Amino acid sequence: MDNSLQQTLSPIADGLKDFERAFAAALGDHAGLIGAMASHVLSSPGKRIRPAMYLLTSAIARVDDRPVPVDGAVAIELIHTATLLHDDVNDGAEQRRGRPAVNRVWGNLPAVLMGDHLFAKAFRIMVRLGNPRVLNAISHATERVAVGELLQVQEIRNFQLRESGYLRIIGDKTASLFAAACESGSLLSGSDRWAVQFRSFGESVGLGFQIADDLLDYKGDEALTGKPVGNDLREGKITLPLIFALQRGTAIERDRILDHLSNGHAEGSFAEVVGFVERYGGFAYARQRAEDCCATALEHIKDIDDSVHKRALEALVTHTISRQS
Amino acid sequence: MDNSLQQTLSPIADGLKDFERAFAAALGDHAGLIGAMASHVLSSPGKRIRPAMYLLTSAIARVDDRPVPVDGAVAIELIHTATLLHDDVNDGAEQRRGRPAVNRVWGNLPAVLMGDHLFAKAFRIMVRLGNPRVLNAISHATERVAVGELLQVQEIRNFQLRESGYLRIIGDKTASLFAAACESGSLLSGSDRWAVQFRSFGESVGLGFQIADDLLDYKGDEALTGKPVGNDLREGKITLPLIFALQRGTAIERDRILDHLSNGHAEGSFAEVVGFVERYGGFAYARQRAEDCCATALEHIKDIDDSVHKRALEALVTHTISRQS
Repeated sequence: MDNSLQQTLSPIADGLKDFERAFAAALGDHAGLIGAMASHVLSSPGKRIRPAMYLLTSAIARVDDRPVPVDGAVAIELIHTATLLHDDVNDGAEQRRGRPAVNRVWGNLPAVLMGDHLFAKAFRIMVRLGNPRVLNAISHATERVAVGELLQVQEIRNFQLRESGYLRIIGDKTASLFAAACESGSLLSGSDRWAVQFRSFGESVGLGFQIADDLLDYKGDEALTGKPVGNDLREGKITLPLIFALQRGTAIERDRILDHLSNGHAEGSFAEVVGFVERYGGFAYARQRAEDCCATALEHIKDIDDSVHKRALEALVTHTISRQS
Repeated sequence: MDNSLQQTLSPIADGLKDFERAFAAALGDHAGLIGAMASHVLSSPGKRIRPAMYLLTSAIARVDDRPVPVDGAVAIELIHTATLLHDDVNDGAEQRRGRPAVNRVWGNLPAVLMGDHLFAKAFRIMVRLGNPRVLNAISHATERVAVGELLQVQEIRNFQLRESGYLRIIGDKTASLFAAACESGSLLSGSDRWAVQFRSFGESVGLGFQIADDLLDYKGDEALTGKPVGNDLREGKITLPLIFALQRGTAIERDRILDHLSNGHAEGSFAEVVGFVERYGGFAYARQRAEDCCATALEHIKDIDDSVHKRALEALVTHTISRQS
């Protein structure tokens, strides 16, 4: 975790430590192959943005001093991790968070099954939490994640994809879990007073997060993100900057770009696509849309009283959308 | 479904039709890629043994005339189907139930994601059922399925595998869902009077089912099973007949067999392995163990009053263990 993010999350530093312990415990009760893959997953933790949102929304919604169970965050991060394992198998990824991907170390089969195992674990934890509304929120999100991933595959190399179709995909595959993290954090605080607002808030943050993530695939610093630029294009994933530019370029330019993209990703083509998108303002547009999502998110929680946790949540939103990795 | 099985299940013929409608509805509310894969899955239905067990146990446990929700069976069959999709990706399977496997038609990526989608759907349906004990039973089974699949991968080409290790694997990967089908069928009947017995019953039937299934991989009629014999061995899966024979053969024979198996599955080796297993009674032993499981299963439900549904359940157990496909 970088320093500025750590600073932002200092009000929930203890909660994040509890989360890490519970997450490791959820992964850690097996020997052999399962244990080895679990250790590998634990050795390269993500930024824990979804758990942080859960902890902050639950701290804000809390009405008494009873601790909020961290298990909701564990379930959500397990689902997120399972999705990453399956994504990496599907993309034939070499690396994840600067370390060899699970599929590279143990093969595709164990990685797919380990993903299934994490899904099952998440489900088990949610059932034990025993809160019907949380079960509903997280199971709904899990369904949307799967649908979003499938829609994304369906639209691979569809150069007619419109912004609305793109937003549907990233809403389902990404924003759904952000929404569930915020809603269930709030619900498990012992009060549901902000649950609806936090769900909408999470949905908007998730959209902004994914638009920013897709921008990094064009404009990211490889040293910071730990992955090469142009991955999405190589896989035929059409994201917002290109969607915007394709609708504005001349027919001749458009055909030339599509020709590049249909013929796979030859050396030099990426620079030409970047130039094209830049010329028509696709990057500036996507950046603006990410900021709009950020503003919409904050609008959803504007009626909530100021507090140290609310300020941390606001700072996390800004970080999420303007991050460099 | 073959004629004798259809005859056996005639007391729940209407329930099975309701199940098919509900299963199709659960799969059928998407267009595009998801809809196409769903249609493909529906066009080659399995034998519906788990749904049949669910329907029979619920009919036996029922105390009044209120209909038992068929959704529990749908959830369990969705989980089973998801597992098959992932298995087929992992095995690079060409066919499933006499039709091209989903991974062959659409590729590995859509097949993995479709499996995730079915898991999520199952989870969603269970949450809507709203019965905490059913949620507990099915989520526990889902966790065991994933662990069993991973243990199986861990033990690939482990020629030291003992019967106890084998039983652990098939208990987790197969018997778990049979147990959950019988337990939740019983729980959702509106009474829990036989839930514990039915869970143990389902576990034993599942063990017998898998031992019989593994026997078919050696001795099955390809025209009936729709798949070539020797698949498990080619994949390095060591099952009960071979485990038994390896412990009884001479050191020289054993080394010769291991030599064959370690060098992959050359033409002619399979016949030699079959001869070796036959010589030491491995097939007869496995057949006997499957029948023992059948007897144990029936023992668990011996105190339940005789009825048309109970007789159908007993007949289903016999069919499950002596089936030819």
